[in-house]
Amino acid sequence: MSPFILNTWYVAACDDEVGEEALFARRLLDQPVLLYRTGHGEPVAMLDRCPHRFAYLSKGRRIGDEVECLYHGLRFGPDGLCTRSPYQKTPPARARVRSFPVVERHRLIWIWMGDPERADPALIPDHSHLDDESLRPLVWHVAFDGNWQLGNDNLMELTHLFWLHTSTIGGWKPDAGATPGETYHARVEEGRVHSRTFVPNITRPPVFDNGVPAGQPFDQWNDTEWVAPANMTFTMGAVPVGAPAVTNRPYMVQSHCITPETATRSHYFSGLARIFQRDGGPEVDARLIAFFKGIFEREDGPIMADVQEQMGDADLFDLDPLILPRDAGAILARRMVAQRLAEEAGAEAKEKGIAGIGEVQV
Amino acid sequence: MSPFILNTWYVAACDDEVGEEALFARRLLDQPVLLYRTGHGEPVAMLDRCPHRFAYLSKGRRIGDEVECLYHGLRFGPDGLCTRSPYQKTPPARARVRSFPVVERHRLIWIWMGDPERADPALIPDHSHLDDESLRPLVWHVAFDGNWQLGNDNLMELTHLFWLHTSTIGGWKPDAGATPGETYHARVEEGRVHSRTFVPNITRPPVFDNGVPAGQPFDQWNDTEWVAPANMTFTMGAVPVGAPAVTNRPYMVQSHCITPETATRSHYFSGLARIFQRDGGPEVDARLIAFFKGIFEREDGPIMADVQEQMGDADLFDLDPLILPRDAGAILARRMVAQRLAEEAGAEAKEKGIAGIGEVQV
Amino acid sequence: MSPFILNTWYVAACDDEVGEEALFARRLLDQPVLLYRTGHGEPVAMLDRCPHRFAYLSKGRRIGDEVECLYHGLRFGPDGLCTRSPYQKTPPARARVRSFPVVERHRLIWIWMGDPERADPALIPDHSHLDDESLRPLVWHVAFDGNWQLGNDNLMELTHLFWLHTSTIGGWKPDAGATPGETYHARVEEGRVHSRTFVPNITRPPVFDNGVPAGQPFDQWNDTEWVAPANMTFTMGAVPVGAPAVTNRPYMVQSHCITPETATRSHYFSGLARIFQRDGGPEVDARLIAFFKGIFEREDGPIMADVQEQMGDADLFDLDPLILPRDAGAILARRMVAQRLAEEAGAEAKEKGIAGIGEVQV
Repeated sequence: MSPFILNTWYVAACDDEVGEEALFARRLLDQPVLLYRTGHGEPVAMLDRCPHRFAYLSKGRRIGDEVECLYHGLRFGPDGLCTRSPYQKTPPARARVRSFPVVERHRLIWIWMGDPERADPALIPDHSHLDDESLRPLVWHVAFDGNWQLGNDNLMELTHLFWLHTSTIGGWKPDAGATPGETYHARVEEGRVHSRTFVPNITRPPVFDNGVPAGQPFDQWNDTEWVAPANMTFTMGAVPVGAPAVTNRPYMVQSHCITPETATRSHYFSGLARIFQRDGGPEVDARLIAFFKGIFEREDGPIMADVQEQMGDADLFDLDPLILPRDAGAILARRMVAQRLAEEAGAEAKEKGIAGIGEVQV
Repeated sequence: MSPFILNTWYVAACDDEVGEEALFARRLLDQPVLLYRTGHGEPVAMLDRCPHRFAYLSKGRRIGDEVECLYHGLRFGPDGLCTRSPYQKTPPARARVRSFPVVERHRLIWIWMGDPERADPALIPDHSHLDDESLRPLVWHVAFDGNWQLGNDNLMELTHLFWLHTSTIGGWKPDAGATPGETYHARVEEGRVHSRTFVPNITRPPVFDNGVPAGQPFDQWNDTEWVAPANMTFTMGAVPVGAPAVTNRPYMVQSHCITPETATRSHYFSGLARIFQRDGGPEVDARLIAFFKGIFEREDGPIMADVQEQMGDADLFDLDPLILPRDAGAILARRMVAQRLAEEAGAEAKEKGIAGIGEVQV
Repeated sequence: MSPFILNTWYVAACDDEVGEEALFARRLLDQPVLLYRTGHGEPVAMLDRCPHRFAYLSKGRRIGDEVECLYHGLRFGPDGLCTRSPYQKTPPARARVRSFPVVERHRLIWIWMGDPERADPALIPDHSHLDDESLRPLVWHVAFDGNWQLGNDNLMELTHLFWLHTSTIGGWKPDAGATPGETYHARVEEGRVHSRTFVPNITRPPVFDNGVPAGQPFDQWNDTEWVAPANMTFTMGAVPVGAPAVTNRPYMVQSHCITPETATRSHYFSGLARIFQRDGGPEVDARLIAFFKGIFEREDGPIMADVQEQMGDADLFDLDPLILPRDAGAILARRMVAQRLAEEAGAEAKEKGIAGIGEVQV
């Protein structure tokens, strides 16, 4: 069974990673992918492998909107078709590279690596908070050495904030777990996992301005909404103690999107919209990105690498992990992923006349 | 078949490697192990893996005699039981880490990674010469890139002293093999391999003071006693020419204990008791450790890594090696190890209703 | 099926790589090989592995024409027979290392690693242009990270000169493929692949003096003659426009010989005889070697490593590559190699009573 869901949109890159001129290479779902932009700025994605002798096209050169292989000079257009073969008047009909549907949306470039017929842009998850310029949205990328589902596990189980991130974003709540009145709920609704944590009457201020005057006690809430395979919207808000926990007044909305690089290494794309520090210009923006990126690189990334090392290629559930109450969101996500993987394997199996989905053990 | 004997004591660490405060991590028998000492100085060993999401506990922090996981804050006592789970009043009953029996003896910390019911401290091999303060005992650790049995092969076949170690401890006998009257015997007795080399009438002095006045000819003898899986006591003595080779007057007793790290990398723990250079204080002790450690790191370790590379994962006997007379001790040890491995596999196999030990090919 | 043809001559080293004194180690066909010269300068090759405990003999020391193992002192003669075993009057009869037939010819040391009975020096491919001192022949060695057949593919498909090597040896022909009258032919004759490229009426001079007065238009031709497993003779010539393309007046003859190091790493041995820059002495020779070596190291080597990475351990044809007209020579060579591999596997299979060659799928 493939370790990846194929028929879905994945983030391939942040918008500013793919420039106007350069050829950009990234491994996604264990396949080499070439990304670039046409002269009109449209993103293009194709398999980063010449069909002749398999050189990386990303090491070739751009000629207008086309790419020329550095090994023997074959040229390909944005649709992957060969436009020129040296020493032949017409390139052979089968000279083509697989191209992938791509859509640029919400500051991110999305790619569909499954059946192209099913690549409906309406299926791209909503991260429209990253389009709201008044919230000065930011996007960034970090890779980590772990299976992509470890990213789901990590980002869906936020008690780790108060242990793993004590010195950065989690240190303001030393009594984590013992706050009177604290609640946590997780549920599945319309194919999404929703979880909410509510912590009443916090007196110590959070890392960033949360909209409640400094020093004043507040109620803190955060919601995580997850949709397969690995798209999370994390919304954090605060209200004066006892006020309704209105979800339409968050002080920060963060996007987390994971794309497999290989079975044991992953890309983490994140985006942030916020009400704080919006007026500092590019310098403050850069500092915020460095802050969040640094946390992931120095705290989350290494521990996921450790977990990957400990798990090897075993399935999480086969290792009989201890399940804690706050794991509910992550476990619900794991189950939905397993279901999707089984469906894709089942469809594939049926075509081959082997086992159907009903027989797949998840 | 496991490449390791499980139901036996192994050295996990030298006593001074596991300090009062720090958490100490070491891979043993291809499992991550956490070692530390309680406030009373008692050594503790447990699997270095949180049962929740498999973080290394050794990367967490100590809270009194307990260990707190850095990922989500679970706490475990010296017996491996979870003592605190954030967000739960009582930790789940199954929240526990596997702990291992450990005993500190002869300046070494011994671990039993097989069936804990069988962990009888009386089975710990005798290295009591390391307890004799009058012999100023030393212990040290070096790792090498080779299967643990290559350590047995190396340390049981001491003719290599005169070839591999010509520039350090073996160079004083350039006519090795041609000394008139030299004898070598190896035998099995009470589950141990004993070998003795006797070289009469040596005129050139050895590296260290051997108790015979310098310049005076002497008879040199050395005994190696081996017990499974990889414990060796190497005793070296000298007497004036023709005097009885009394074994109770050695000038140096060295312990060699090998513990597998993985199937292809091993820990070598050594200890030394001696009559020479006992009055130089810590500085001379440190120099002696550096001397012996350096020999192993620069001469034995690299050649075992080479041999491992050449052998791959093949069994020694399957490679049809040339057997020399002086290999007797090493071969006897290999056979006893093979027998022990087969016994453990046989027991396991029987439980599974497969092959019994009688059918195992060694 | 072995990835290597066994019953054939391979280049083991350039003549000047194996000096008078030193032991020289090189991995060939995934076996460690020791090379050295006797006192008479005769090259010797044997398995670089002591039959006792598998140390690398190349790490031992020379004693006259013999080699002494550094681990336990066994000594072996040039024929691989053990001449001395410490602690034994006579070495055991089976104490021997496999030796390999070697022949020094055409500035190269050739080795036969298959059945020694079939090692006929008459089968060594002709590279006698490297013996013609008037053409000031040069030889050199470079390794690359790719299967040895990628070397054939690369060196048989010379259109890559004008794409991969634009900044070095191929840059003088920017209109590659569009030259009016250009022809290419490939054919098999007497077990060899011959290919010829002819480009008429070139006005821009090549990198090196081609014998036609500078600035004068000329017709350029090059021939490649390939013989299994990976021996190529590349002959390049030029004549004034319209003159017969006489093949006996080349301005440069280059040898390319590939020897597998492992299945995914290879040795490239090259030699050059030329009419240009013959009078500059050793300094110019060294500059020429650095020039050609550098091209291979910086341009060919990296792209073959990329191709290897993309292909993994798949067979080229299983990947359904696009075939271009100029691939004819390389494809013919691939087919002949497949045939040879099948023959050797078939012979082997027959002995084992399994499949014969008729059933081997190539």
